[in-house]
Amino acid sequence: MLGFITRPPRQLLSLLCIGYRLPRSSVLCTQPRECGIWLSLGGFHERGQDWEQTQKIYNCHVLLNNKGLVVAQYRKTHLCDVEIPGQGPMRESNSTMPGRTLEPPISTPAGKVGLAICYDMRFPELSLKLAQAGAEILTYPSAFGSVTGPAHWEVLLRARAIESQCYVIAAAQCGRHHETRASYGHSMVVDPWGTVVARCSEGPGLCLARIDLNFLRQMRQHLPVFQHRRPDLYGSLGQPLS
Amino acid sequence: MLGFITRPPRQLLSLLCIGYRLPRSSVLCTQPRECGIWLSLGGFHERGQDWEQTQKIYNCHVLLNNKGLVVAQYRKTHLCDVEIPGQGPMRESNSTMPGRTLEPPISTPAGKVGLAICYDMRFPELSLKLAQAGAEILTYPSAFGSVTGPAHWEVLLRARAIESQCYVIAAAQCGRHHETRASYGHSMVVDPWGTVVARCSEGPGLCLARIDLNFLRQMRQHLPVFQHRRPDLYGSLGQPLS
Repeated sequence: MLGFITRPPRQLLSLLCIGYRLPRSSVLCTQPRECGIWLSLGGFHERGQDWEQTQKIYNCHVLLNNKGLVVAQYRKTHLCDVEIPGQGPMRESNSTMPGRTLEPPISTPAGKVGLAICYDMRFPELSLKLAQAGAEILTYPSAFGSVTGPAHWEVLLRARAIESQCYVIAAAQCGRHHETRASYGHSMVVDPWGTVVARCSEGPGLCLARIDLNFLRQMRQHLPVFQHRRPDLYGSLGQPLS
Repeated sequence: MLGFITRPPRQLLSLLCIGYRLPRSSVLCTQPRECGIWLSLGGFHERGQDWEQTQKIYNCHVLLNNKGLVVAQYRKTHLCDVEIPGQGPMRESNSTMPGRTLEPPISTPAGKVGLAICYDMRFPELSLKLAQAGAEILTYPSAFGSVTGPAHWEVLLRARAIESQCYVIAAAQCGRHHETRASYGHSMVVDPWGTVVARCSEGPGLCLARIDLNFLRQMRQHLPVFQHRRPDLYGSLGQPLS
């Protein structure tokens, strides 16, 4: 989990914006190779090809394989323009462009991974669409606030897991970024039954969970919600992801 | 909250199936008149016009106004055909026909009420569609099981409230119906922030909550998720409800 959160957008935009062209010598690329692991990293501030025109970045979630290669990137599609009492206003769209597409889930040794970011979790359509496209694991690297965190973080992640019948992995930034912004932390992993199977506390930490795809398949068999949907009543979540 | 739950479908179907043609002398009609209240009742077993052909009922949610008149009815659209370990198999479709439509929200003195039933709560598309059609209060008369209840009841109701920014009222059957079926109870009211503002325990009970539409409107203003949706990515939940 990497990212910058700064107060004035100008300061954010003056930082080195790193995208998915990570140098091969970066620790983010060498670590997967050395440890034989995959990494989900976000949200990166990425300068897109439209940077010169827009002067805005993309909020980008990057997936690296165990060779340190970028195998997928997702640009956050729902921007967080909100004004939560007690948490201060946030206008992500001042500095960020919204992504234009969802990404098809990516096959990994742990299962098929769907990519999302933070505020996206308030939109069940996105997670359902990723699950319909084959996702078994949904990933939400996040920086929830100090007010919405205690109220919404766990309940939304658990609901996304239950209704989409996926594992949910939500790495979370934590602590104080500057005078007016703090993040809630509490990274967690939720299984498809909605049980929190691993979690961190407020501060920096590491948590581990076993991904059991047999359990996931059994659950989908016992409670076949995707066979029970009624697209005749509320549509079919648009075109399938290619 | 009224309903029958019996083990063999034949026994259920042999019971007097009452629909929305309630006799004016029924306590369900006199009570609203005497007390000046509205009643949401479900799930009724309703014999539809297709009863002779299908020999199946509809699982029906009925809304009575303060004159004891039926102002809306909703037939459950998602039937619960599941096999939860520890809770026993359930095949609602053996005895029940699925409803063919969603109902537009109904104006009441407490706010605009959207109608759903029990298992419907696993489908966020339905609650989002009702909210988009103007619902301020979502109602889920339910009979959750003894295994899914502790695991999913509260978290799904709270998520539906948070993401649709509606009050959620979920009256719940409780206790043992017969040797193999018990219902979880724990009726609750959730506000649009996701806080459980009233709840019963396992047994029969009554709970009261204040519906504050100013709070709801403020929340929608502060966290305008319905302005942030991306129908270009996942459709627009089908045709608007008429």
